[in-house]
Amino acid sequence: MRVLVAGGAGFIGRHLCRELIHAGHRVVCVDNFSLGTRAGIEPLMSVKAFGLYEADITDRERLEQIFEVEEPEYIFQMAANSDIRASAANPDVEYRNTYSTTYELLNCMRKYHVKNLFFASTSAVYGDKRGVVLDENTPDLSPISYYGAAKLGCEALVSAYSYMNDIHSLVFRFPNVIGPGLTHGVIFDFIQKLGINPSRLEILGNGRQTKPYIFIEDLTDAILRFMITPASGVALYNVGVSGETSVTAIADMLCEEMGLTDVVYQYTGGEGGWRGDVPRFCYSADKIHKAGWSARYTSDEAVRKTIRGVLGERNVCL
Amino acid sequence: MRVLVAGGAGFIGRHLCRELIHAGHRVVCVDNFSLGTRAGIEPLMSVKAFGLYEADITDRERLEQIFEVEEPEYIFQMAANSDIRASAANPDVEYRNTYSTTYELLNCMRKYHVKNLFFASTSAVYGDKRGVVLDENTPDLSPISYYGAAKLGCEALVSAYSYMNDIHSLVFRFPNVIGPGLTHGVIFDFIQKLGINPSRLEILGNGRQTKPYIFIEDLTDAILRFMITPASGVALYNVGVSGETSVTAIADMLCEEMGLTDVVYQYTGGEGGWRGDVPRFCYSADKIHKAGWSARYTSDEAVRKTIRGVLGERNVCL
Repeated sequence: MRVLVAGGAGFIGRHLCRELIHAGHRVVCVDNFSLGTRAGIEPLMSVKAFGLYEADITDRERLEQIFEVEEPEYIFQMAANSDIRASAANPDVEYRNTYSTTYELLNCMRKYHVKNLFFASTSAVYGDKRGVVLDENTPDLSPISYYGAAKLGCEALVSAYSYMNDIHSLVFRFPNVIGPGLTHGVIFDFIQKLGINPSRLEILGNGRQTKPYIFIEDLTDAILRFMITPASGVALYNVGVSGETSVTAIADMLCEEMGLTDVVYQYTGGEGGWRGDVPRFCYSADKIHKAGWSARYTSDEAVRKTIRGVLGERNVCL
Repeated sequence: MRVLVAGGAGFIGRHLCRELIHAGHRVVCVDNFSLGTRAGIEPLMSVKAFGLYEADITDRERLEQIFEVEEPEYIFQMAANSDIRASAANPDVEYRNTYSTTYELLNCMRKYHVKNLFFASTSAVYGDKRGVVLDENTPDLSPISYYGAAKLGCEALVSAYSYMNDIHSLVFRFPNVIGPGLTHGVIFDFIQKLGINPSRLEILGNGRQTKPYIFIEDLTDAILRFMITPASGVALYNVGVSGETSVTAIADMLCEEMGLTDVVYQYTGGEGGWRGDVPRFCYSADKIHKAGWSARYTSDEAVRKTIRGVLGERNVCL
């Protein structure tokens, strides 16, 4: 199939492009390199089934040209701001990079009659619902971050555009996604910090923030498994894993893997890492399990594999 | 209090401006007259407590100037596309007039530390959930119109901005709002059509579309009653009325009030009036009832009063 991956040079996007190519698809990546990098997709550049457009998805004229030339049959919307902390200081980033990119893609799908969509959503749409096991029917979605708000707005757009234009949409609400090639997030931050000073580690919040982490290979496996949705309309899934991992547990695993002992943890205090951070959430994966898929790695295993992967990359680079 | 009514020249906005002035507030109306009209707010122009800015709310620089000069303490976001049929053909209208206006207002509230918001939402956020009595905890909101999608996106923005900036927000999900000064909708359309040809009436759909209609005075009464929300965060209410009214029942009442007999109804057929129209919905008003408010008029009474009001206006005008 001819597929277009918006944001295909980002952390998740580049893994997805690779897996789509392996599965036999012709992949066109559209990215403005605001967060994604050329280096990230360098290994794909020589592959015949891969094409790249450096373009901003909110540039309607340019996006329409790409749809006209490439005639994609399936759109993967992976373009978004992915740094929630950054947009807390500047919500325009979410309006532009998360909401408006989705809006423009849907408009092109409407105009060029593209009927298949994958949309990357997030646990952040739920807001702070401690004590609730979040499933797809949890009511009263109340995002507390600009990121979660923009993504929920996108889900609403996907719902209406799917209905109005007979689009088949697959929406996954991701937990934290990690793996080799990480560009930000707690593991990335900790490795940076310990690289500068291996004797002490600043930890945002009280370290008890506890979330499920999914390994990137599990995520792309689920996307490829479900990308052809049999029914029309929107199919929505929480992509859950077994277990959750606390921030302090991540620090412990990292110190162990780096061979560091006696690292002093300095907590900034408070329940969340920053305002808009949901300090704890717990996913029900019942729906996707019933549909025949489950993650290969637990949350702790995903963290461990990621740490090893990222440390390995750095050893190779340095 | 110094209040700013965005979209204050529209059908609901102008009634709200009047009632806010009656209640002793200083009202600044901001409207670009895309749907609202100067004629609609003419009666307020000589009132000392009323001020008007002709401005587009998506013009950030201009909006910031207004916030700086007027220093509003309370924002009423009534600016939106209100013609759902129109935006079905051109979703840009919703992106610009519904979503982006809300986004820019919230950004100004964030920048200028305005802590009180009323947001006009809609039953359209639920989507087509026939057989379900819709309450504030109904899960799986799946809008089927671009209008409903934009409004749900706005609710998500209100949630995050309220949390991040300690804003107190009151969100009402309106059913159909009707009353004197209507600018569109089924009653307006029918009166136009029968004015041209009083012997036959084209009715979109099968006429069995059945919805609750609220009289404008009831709506503004509820807004003024709840505008000072005691708790922080977001207070969300379905603003329900007793009963619902079918489209054919509206036609019957209108013919009766106009003294027309033997009008031939010509149905265009289908369940909804147009694609994206929710043909039937039923609201639970339990939450707002428990909070001590209920509508004075039933849905049928609201329709009857509106017909009489609108016909009266036309007789005066002609």
